[in-house]
Amino acid sequence: MRFTAAAALLLTSCAAGQGGSGLPEPSARHIFWRPAPVMGAPEPVRVVEAAPPAAWRAIAPEDLLIIDLKDGRRVAIELSREFAPIHVANVRAFARAGWWTGSAIYRMQDNYVAQWGIGEGKERALPGGVVRLPPPEYHRPLTGLAIRPLGFPDSYAPMVGHADSWPIGYDPEQGRAWLTHCYGAVGVSRDLAPDTGTGSELYAVIGHAPRHLDLNIALVGRVIDGMDALSARPRGTEALGLYKEESQYVPIVHARLAADMPAAERPAYEVLRSDSPSFSHYVTGRANRGGEFFGRPAGGVDICNVNVPVRRRVQH
Amino acid sequence: MRFTAAAALLLTSCAAGQGGSGLPEPSARHIFWRPAPVMGAPEPVRVVEAAPPAAWRAIAPEDLLIIDLKDGRRVAIELSREFAPIHVANVRAFARAGWWTGSAIYRMQDNYVAQWGIGEGKERALPGGVVRLPPPEYHRPLTGLAIRPLGFPDSYAPMVGHADSWPIGYDPEQGRAWLTHCYGAVGVSRDLAPDTGTGSELYAVIGHAPRHLDLNIALVGRVIDGMDALSARPRGTEALGLYKEESQYVPIVHARLAADMPAAERPAYEVLRSDSPSFSHYVTGRANRGGEFFGRPAGGVDICNVNVPVRRRVQH
Repeated sequence: MRFTAAAALLLTSCAAGQGGSGLPEPSARHIFWRPAPVMGAPEPVRVVEAAPPAAWRAIAPEDLLIIDLKDGRRVAIELSREFAPIHVANVRAFARAGWWTGSAIYRMQDNYVAQWGIGEGKERALPGGVVRLPPPEYHRPLTGLAIRPLGFPDSYAPMVGHADSWPIGYDPEQGRAWLTHCYGAVGVSRDLAPDTGTGSELYAVIGHAPRHLDLNIALVGRVIDGMDALSARPRGTEALGLYKEESQYVPIVHARLAADMPAAERPAYEVLRSDSPSFSHYVTGRANRGGEFFGRPAGGVDICNVNVPVRRRVQH
Repeated sequence: MRFTAAAALLLTSCAAGQGGSGLPEPSARHIFWRPAPVMGAPEPVRVVEAAPPAAWRAIAPEDLLIIDLKDGRRVAIELSREFAPIHVANVRAFARAGWWTGSAIYRMQDNYVAQWGIGEGKERALPGGVVRLPPPEYHRPLTGLAIRPLGFPDSYAPMVGHADSWPIGYDPEQGRAWLTHCYGAVGVSRDLAPDTGTGSELYAVIGHAPRHLDLNIALVGRVIDGMDALSARPRGTEALGLYKEESQYVPIVHARLAADMPAAERPAYEVLRSDSPSFSHYVTGRANRGGEFFGRPAGGVDICNVNVPVRRRVQH
């Protein structure tokens, strides 16, 4: 019977967890531990509203990539400081060289990714400062990261949590951490060889988190504003969601670092600090939705359904 | 130190699993068991191509809701037989009464849902056969379901798997099972009271799985074709993603059961049977992506990233 098989499977897992000391008596508690749901947890939106100034960190203009599209839409991307530094430096160099001016969004694959650049396989001299063959920066050492563990099971990573407000998977046994492919995550397209992505072609996740890409490709950032300027586009009808006609491409006017924009035009954002008490309350609220609508809090949330709060910067 | 705290938290969990017999020595194995990744797993697309006729089940015309939109796009939805039977019967009754003719998609909330109907709060006499106040069919008994356990940890449900090719969460301790809010899942909009949704207003998930809705709302089906006719729409700018102007609404020409369409026009689909060996190979492949691109198989997949294979029906 299927269910017995499942119980056995997971009991084995817990037995292994106990150092292989034989199978304990079957018990539901063995099979699936999770924290008890919290009734009356704070409403996430209220937690964010009540978060004090100290709970927010400003995104540095050097870490903010602003993409302006020909149809007037704008996409704001936070670049990660602590992950894939060589790829991120490449992205900054491409932006400063105006690389993406005249390039376009040419791929829209439903429930997967939007992708932009000059087009894979198209050759063009790389700007100065761009590393042509960056190493596969798919993970980084755990040391040096202040991690807030999520505290719920994950289907992919040994552990998940947030570091400097970035959703991450990590493995204490191997001592490494990596960004997760959540909705809005921005990564570096590559060919089959791991070192073939420079950062000239980027993609953003527009569907359910394709976590199988974690540790297989370099993530460099996340969309923090204007996400629907990517997600709401018509899907491409060719293989991999490529647009069939160039007339379908969405031209990019320019992609600049906020640091290189005139101060008056420069957008600014803040992210809720994952090391703040507000963030912990927010996660508890996300994992235990209450209020008038939810009769049954889940008692858990997956790392890609936490949705780290971001807001336009307010002056204090 | 954060990580120690996490280890303690999860060790406690496993200790509880062992009947509260104190904390075992910290060990990575305690903290996060998962199956070892499989190298050289079958490529999912090849498994589907190679699946024999017996591995497919036809979707009954009574279980197939076909929505035709004014812009010429079509959305095909499989209705669930085994879950929320009263709500599903309502949906069939609404379809047969032509309820949705002249209604529209009026809500597009990014990374959440598309919603359609005549609009919440708008009163109209219900067709005959519609149950006005269906009970909250948020879960069903576990007995009677042939479940294929997924075999990987889940962030929300004690256990997850597939029953009759539907992604489900289940709880052997409480003896109940429920459909999961995966990409494309179709549910019954309701007001704050649990019994306020008849099935006249439906929504489909267009973003990362909002699993916190599981067990809080009745799911009645899933989109199996034409998903991008929903997901690629412009997002609504009002609260909850409602369109601001009625001119933005996407009119529905009609929503019919395939059973009520002329045989010649009737679309037909098949779903890969979750009790087939092909399905198991497919899941193994999805959890362990290989081929030339993936250097590191995840060794796991979440229930909403399995993507149950569906195809246009082939005559045997």
